[in-house]
Amino acid sequence: MNIPVFADIEQAHIIVQKYAHRTPVLTSSSINKIVGGNLFFKCENLQKVGAFKFRGACNAVFSLSEHEAQKGVATHSSGNHAAALALAAKMRGIAAHIVMPNNSPEIKKKAVAGYGANITFCEPTLQARESTLARIVAETGATEIHPYNNFNVIAGQGTAAKELIEDAGDFDIIMAPVGGGGLLSGTALSTRYLLPDCKVIAAEPAGADDAFRSFHEKKIIPSVNPKTIADGLLTSLGERNFAIIIKNVDDIVTVSEDKIVEAMRMIWERMKIIIEPSSATALAVVLEKPDLFRSKRTGIILTGGNVDLTHLPFGER
Amino acid sequence: MNIPVFADIEQAHIIVQKYAHRTPVLTSSSINKIVGGNLFFKCENLQKVGAFKFRGACNAVFSLSEHEAQKGVATHSSGNHAAALALAAKMRGIAAHIVMPNNSPEIKKKAVAGYGANITFCEPTLQARESTLARIVAETGATEIHPYNNFNVIAGQGTAAKELIEDAGDFDIIMAPVGGGGLLSGTALSTRYLLPDCKVIAAEPAGADDAFRSFHEKKIIPSVNPKTIADGLLTSLGERNFAIIIKNVDDIVTVSEDKIVEAMRMIWERMKIIIEPSSATALAVVLEKPDLFRSKRTGIILTGGNVDLTHLPFGER
Repeated sequence: MNIPVFADIEQAHIIVQKYAHRTPVLTSSSINKIVGGNLFFKCENLQKVGAFKFRGACNAVFSLSEHEAQKGVATHSSGNHAAALALAAKMRGIAAHIVMPNNSPEIKKKAVAGYGANITFCEPTLQARESTLARIVAETGATEIHPYNNFNVIAGQGTAAKELIEDAGDFDIIMAPVGGGGLLSGTALSTRYLLPDCKVIAAEPAGADDAFRSFHEKKIIPSVNPKTIADGLLTSLGERNFAIIIKNVDDIVTVSEDKIVEAMRMIWERMKIIIEPSSATALAVVLEKPDLFRSKRTGIILTGGNVDLTHLPFGER
Repeated sequence: MNIPVFADIEQAHIIVQKYAHRTPVLTSSSINKIVGGNLFFKCENLQKVGAFKFRGACNAVFSLSEHEAQKGVATHSSGNHAAALALAAKMRGIAAHIVMPNNSPEIKKKAVAGYGANITFCEPTLQARESTLARIVAETGATEIHPYNNFNVIAGQGTAAKELIEDAGDFDIIMAPVGGGGLLSGTALSTRYLLPDCKVIAAEPAGADDAFRSFHEKKIIPSVNPKTIADGLLTSLGERNFAIIIKNVDDIVTVSEDKIVEAMRMIWERMKIIIEPSSATALAVVLEKPDLFRSKRTGIILTGGNVDLTHLPFGER
C-alpha cells in the first residue's frame, strides 16, 4: 500500500467493524460550559485492549495474505500496540511475537501474555529491541507490524475519525494527540476526505515536542530525552506519518504537564470515564487556548484508558 | 398517579429523552470470558449528574403542572438525588430547595450549589432532615419529590431498563442494585412489560440487606445500622417500591463487601469507566454465583459514577 486513500480506510473499516467496538461519542454539558464550545469525545479508551491501537493492529493483521499470516506477526513494544497486535493475531489464529524490554511493568507483561503472544524479553535499549526483533523475524518469517510507521496501521487508525464524523456529524475542528503519528495521520486522512473544511489540530506535550518542531521546521526532528506524564507520546514521528501530517494537518499545539493532569482529572470527574494521560492532551490544549475553540464544534479522540489505578496523579484538593 | 403502567413509563421516556443522555450499553469480552456469560452494561454512570437519579427527578419535575412548578420542588438528600433534582429544576427554570445534613462532604455541597439550588443545612439526623424539609415545604409551597417513594420517580427510573432492552435486545436476566427501590421497581415494571419471560434479579450488599429480608418475609423490614461501601444502598425500601418489587421481582441476592470491591475494580480496569461501589453490586453477584448466569444474556444497570478520586478502595496488588 502507498499513502492510504479514503477507499483504503473504508476497506480497513470493513475489517475493523468486524472485530472492534464501535465506541461511543460522549458529550459533557459541564465541560462544554467551562470551555464555551461544543466538544464531542470519541471514546477509544473504551476500545478493545483499552486503546485505539487495536484498530490499526487489526487492519494490519487481517490484511495479510494467508501465506504471510501463517508465519505470524512480530513487533517490539512495551505499550498498547503490543497488546493490540497480540489480540488481533489471536483473533486470526496466528502467532504474535512480541519483543518487550525486560523492565516493562508486570501489568503490561501479563496483559500481552494473556492474549497468548510469544514474548521475548531483551535489554531496555532501542538497539537491543531492534536486533532482537530482527533475529525473530529472520527465524520465523513473521511479518513485522510497526506500531505507526505502517500504511495498514494508519488506515486502521483512520477509522476512529470516520466513525466520529459518521456518528456526530459536522465539525469545525478535529483533534488527536501526536506521538509516533499513527493516529494523527489516519485522522487527518479521514477528516480531509469527509470534511474538507474541518481543521485538524494535534496536541503534544511540551516536554515531548518533536512533532511540533518537525511540523514547523518541515523535517523530522527526532525526540531527544522527552519527559511527560503522557507516556504514549514519547516516540518520534514516523516517516510515513510525517509525510501525511505535513500535508494534511493544520496545526500542532503543545501543552503543559499541569494542563494535561487538569484535563485528565476533568474527564474522570465530569465524564466518569478512565483515560490515560496521553488522552488528555487534546482537552488540555482546549483549556489552555479556549479562544481557538469558543462556539466551535470540536471532535476529540480519546486514545486510551490504560493506567495503574494504584498510582494516580490526583492529589487532595 | 397510581402504580405506573407501561404507558406512564413511555410518557416519562418522552420527557427523559429530551433532557437526559441516552447512555451507551457497553460489553466486555474479557469480563464475559471470566463469568462465562454475556453481560450488557447500561451505563447510567455516564448519565447527567453521574447517576440514573436524573431520570426520575427529571420526570417528576417536568410532570408538575405550571401552577405547582412555580412554587418549586424540595427534598432532603445528601446524595445523587439532590444533584439530580437541582439540575432538573434548573432546566425547568424553577426553584429547588434541598435540605442537606451539615456534615455532607464538601464536594456534594458544591455540586448541588453548582446547579443553583437553595440549600438549607440541618443536623445530621433523620428527624432534623424531615422537620427542616416540612418547614420549607410549608413556607414555600414547594412540591416534595421523594428520592424513590414516588410514582413519577419510579416511572422515570424505568426508562433506563426500557432503553437497555431497546438497544441490546432480548435478555434472560436483568439486574439492578436495590437501596430504596426506586430503580429496581422501575426496572421491574419495564422488564415485565417488554420481556415477560426475563428474570429480574436485584443485588444488595449483605451489610445492608433490608430489601433481601423484606422480600423474603413479604413485609417491609427497615434498615438498622447498615454498613457497606455501597453508600447509595443504605436506605430502607419505600412502601410504593416494595409493593411493585414484591409482585414483579424474581429474586434479591446479597453479596459480600469483598466481591463488591473486586467487581468495582474489574469494571474500572477492564471497561475503563468509573463506577461508584453501589454500581458494582450486580456484577459482584454474578462473580459470587456464576452458575446462575452461565451462558445467559444478562443486562446490568450501572447506577452511578460519583466517587472521590483521592479515596479509592484499590490497594497495590
